[in-house]
Amino acid sequence: MEQHSNILKYKRLGIYTQNENVVYMHEDCHVCVSEGFEALTRIRISNATTSIVASLNVLNSDILLPNEIGLSDAAAKKLNVSQNDTLYVSHLEPIESLSHVRAKIYNQKLDCKAYNEIITDIVEGDYSNIHLSAFITACAGDRMDIDEISDLTKAMIASGKQLNWKKEIVVDKHCIGGLPGNRTTPLVVAIVAAYGLTMPKTSSRAITSPAGTADTMEVLTNVTLSSEEIKAVVEKEGGCIVWGGTAQLSPADDILIKIEKALDIDSEGQLIASVLSKKAAAGSTHVVIDIPVGETAKVRSMEMAQKLKNHMETVGNAVGLNVKVIITDGSQPVGRGIGPTLEAIDILKVLKNETDAPNDLEKRALLLAGELIELSGKVGKGKGTKTAKGVLKSGQAYKKFLAICNAQGRFSKPVLAPYKIEIKAEKSGVLKRIDNRKIAKLAKLSGAPQSKSAGILLNAHLGESIKENQLLYTIYAESKGELNYALDYKNNHNDIITII
Amino acid sequence: MEQHSNILKYKRLGIYTQNENVVYMHEDCHVCVSEGFEALTRIRISNATTSIVASLNVLNSDILLPNEIGLSDAAAKKLNVSQNDTLYVSHLEPIESLSHVRAKIYNQKLDCKAYNEIITDIVEGDYSNIHLSAFITACAGDRMDIDEISDLTKAMIASGKQLNWKKEIVVDKHCIGGLPGNRTTPLVVAIVAAYGLTMPKTSSRAITSPAGTADTMEVLTNVTLSSEEIKAVVEKEGGCIVWGGTAQLSPADDILIKIEKALDIDSEGQLIASVLSKKAAAGSTHVVIDIPVGETAKVRSMEMAQKLKNHMETVGNAVGLNVKVIITDGSQPVGRGIGPTLEAIDILKVLKNETDAPNDLEKRALLLAGELIELSGKVGKGKGTKTAKGVLKSGQAYKKFLAICNAQGRFSKPVLAPYKIEIKAEKSGVLKRIDNRKIAKLAKLSGAPQSKSAGILLNAHLGESIKENQLLYTIYAESKGELNYALDYKNNHNDIITII
Repeated sequence: MEQHSNILKYKRLGIYTQNENVVYMHEDCHVCVSEGFEALTRIRISNATTSIVASLNVLNSDILLPNEIGLSDAAAKKLNVSQNDTLYVSHLEPIESLSHVRAKIYNQKLDCKAYNEIITDIVEGDYSNIHLSAFITACAGDRMDIDEISDLTKAMIASGKQLNWKKEIVVDKHCIGGLPGNRTTPLVVAIVAAYGLTMPKTSSRAITSPAGTADTMEVLTNVTLSSEEIKAVVEKEGGCIVWGGTAQLSPADDILIKIEKALDIDSEGQLIASVLSKKAAAGSTHVVIDIPVGETAKVRSMEMAQKLKNHMETVGNAVGLNVKVIITDGSQPVGRGIGPTLEAIDILKVLKNETDAPNDLEKRALLLAGELIELSGKVGKGKGTKTAKGVLKSGQAYKKFLAICNAQGRFSKPVLAPYKIEIKAEKSGVLKRIDNRKIAKLAKLSGAPQSKSAGILLNAHLGESIKENQLLYTIYAESKGELNYALDYKNNHNDIITII
Repeated sequence: MEQHSNILKYKRLGIYTQNENVVYMHEDCHVCVSEGFEALTRIRISNATTSIVASLNVLNSDILLPNEIGLSDAAAKKLNVSQNDTLYVSHLEPIESLSHVRAKIYNQKLDCKAYNEIITDIVEGDYSNIHLSAFITACAGDRMDIDEISDLTKAMIASGKQLNWKKEIVVDKHCIGGLPGNRTTPLVVAIVAAYGLTMPKTSSRAITSPAGTADTMEVLTNVTLSSEEIKAVVEKEGGCIVWGGTAQLSPADDILIKIEKALDIDSEGQLIASVLSKKAAAGSTHVVIDIPVGETAKVRSMEMAQKLKNHMETVGNAVGLNVKVIITDGSQPVGRGIGPTLEAIDILKVLKNETDAPNDLEKRALLLAGELIELSGKVGKGKGTKTAKGVLKSGQAYKKFLAICNAQGRFSKPVLAPYKIEIKAEKSGVLKRIDNRKIAKLAKLSGAPQSKSAGILLNAHLGESIKENQLLYTIYAESKGELNYALDYKNNHNDIITII
């Protein structure tokens, strides 16, 4: 055989493509030429210890020499390469699990083994975005039955780390997104931890919303903790409220969710597998899930919510979780603040039992905490909310919250943004409708969540009688530019809040 | 509003990503920072005259300065930019047609308008590979009914150029791939053009096979002709056999087919729309489609072939084409040669009525030419093949073929490759099976189609009695290395040809 020495020298290009492994080679590279590689060919790249699969982008500029090879950041990280390292490239053996994806595309039911193989290869990084998108699409539109959703969930749990808290009962909650300001998590953790349950809560940062629980908590305390630090906080206080980004729980979910976001779909099967795999991997045993229903919430009809509830509970059972799903009103934002700092202010008002604390936020938190307390079996049916209320009103929840914050490293008071503008009613009438999506967009344009104190402070709720010139909401921003940016949007959309 | 001047300076990076529009910006770029762009965000990039949509890759190296912007080759070509040109970037307005894709994912039937909008946006380059993959997957697995396939086909026809030959009857043929050596097209064109029909044939180069018709014809004549040159050839000779790559017929198909290849699926709906949209856009009126059926062919069962035939004919009718589908034996390669030069030799032997011309190739060509002649209505049912045979045996077809080659610029005689090795039977018996896919792979490893004279010359066919040491096939190559590369594969696969 002639010399087909498929060896190239690594050059750092520093190209960030999210998860996708991309390899860059020069069009005159001897390997491309001899192997017949072309753009988008999937190829295997190895060093002495490991190997990855990547999609080829072909270069015809001096960014790379013909004997050099570049990698996207994700690929470089997986291979752990340094400048000038030697890399070997080779043809890709077929990815066997793609035959399962094709079977699913052709409407076949997949078994547990098939889902395991698919998820294993996805976590390995063997799937391109094209393959991931096909897998997600083939599983959407009710094409997975309940057994398949359970098998997918189990495969996703097994794909990453699994925490073990060495407690009989570990509680958690989840809300199927869509309601601005619905920041019940810190309240629920404070209440149930004060009550004596273990609730090691990992939360996300905002992806498309003006604030995630981690963003809001970061106003008040540190949220980026190591596994060891988290463990210490939970052992000391029975609960924590930290960012879950570093935990490597259900890593398949992190990959799939980005593709779902790009497609703007959230199919039932993937949603259930996503939520429950994260909970199970985090070591939870008892989970309450809140599905807010409303025309501008994520779940828009009671029928969809009911179906989701049934499937969530069935799959939860199949993967060994005690799951209780509650369906709540999702017709308007919760609390007054939308944005990290403004939501943190709401939370503190509730915990401190202040007279102007947002009642709706408190009620929701008590409902969820109560359900968790009931689910744990510590009190009888119907007594959970009352128990939770006792813990809150006694000040124990606030005390516990401060203790958790301090255990996480600090407690800081929220500070309002320097720029604001008050939006007033242009006519008298009844507040008929608040568009959750548009009010969230407004908060984002004002700078949330990057600018922590930016956002919206709502002054009116559905059904209220409104007088002309009455304050409806205040836009907060950290710069005059962002304030105007939000104001522009407000002036171009007269259906953010509807008064008739 | 603060200065959000979203202006960047173009720097050529020369990154080839096939069709996908990718934009590269530095992580410290003021636009990324102020707009909150992150990796894979889809953004709009404009110059003074036009705009495109691209996926963002974020750079953290000195390939780009913070005020510079790079584009994949596809994107740079669409914007027609030069070094240091000013480009404007902005948030992407929602791509409305993606709501149809989501509807399809959720099993809804789409109408004509929806398919038109989807295909228009795809051709505009507004879809990322993730969106394209979802669209293809959502349409696969029998999820399109016959109306939808017709609507998709019409939308694809309308998406590009449409040729008009100003003839009442313009014939064409297509073979649903999978059979190595099945190079009937040049024969069919020569026969029917000699008979007096118009057959302006555009063919593809090999994508995954050892030779496409364009590769084979390039051994004998020029195949890369401009539209004007093609027109002149057809006007003069009634037919041509050229590469269709520059014609911009059904450009949506060119985009979708690459995603299908990456997924290794070829769903019925997309296949029909792909084939028929190309034919209709090329100005054909009467089309014969050959579906070879065999266990290692593309279509593996008679049932699948029959269903495909019915749907092809119905959709053909709906888009105004007169389509006849024939189902043929796809159990083994056709002719003796596999690879451009070796196939060209087979073709010339048939045209020149030589005694060792491959009989199976001749028979298939006469069948297809005969069906076209019948379809055109020039002869009665059952008389087509006989008519075609008359044209071939009289030497008129050969004369026409030479005339077409000369009109295309040259006629060159094929020359055999310098290196070869003969593969002989290891035992006596009956030739029971030839694996189409493996023999094609062997031809590719020997260098075909890049090395035009590389490939396989078959010396035995199914059902033949074979003696030990009898010549089965010869591997040809243009370098000793490639010959050994193929031989390695042969030595590791004892089921390329099975004798029992």
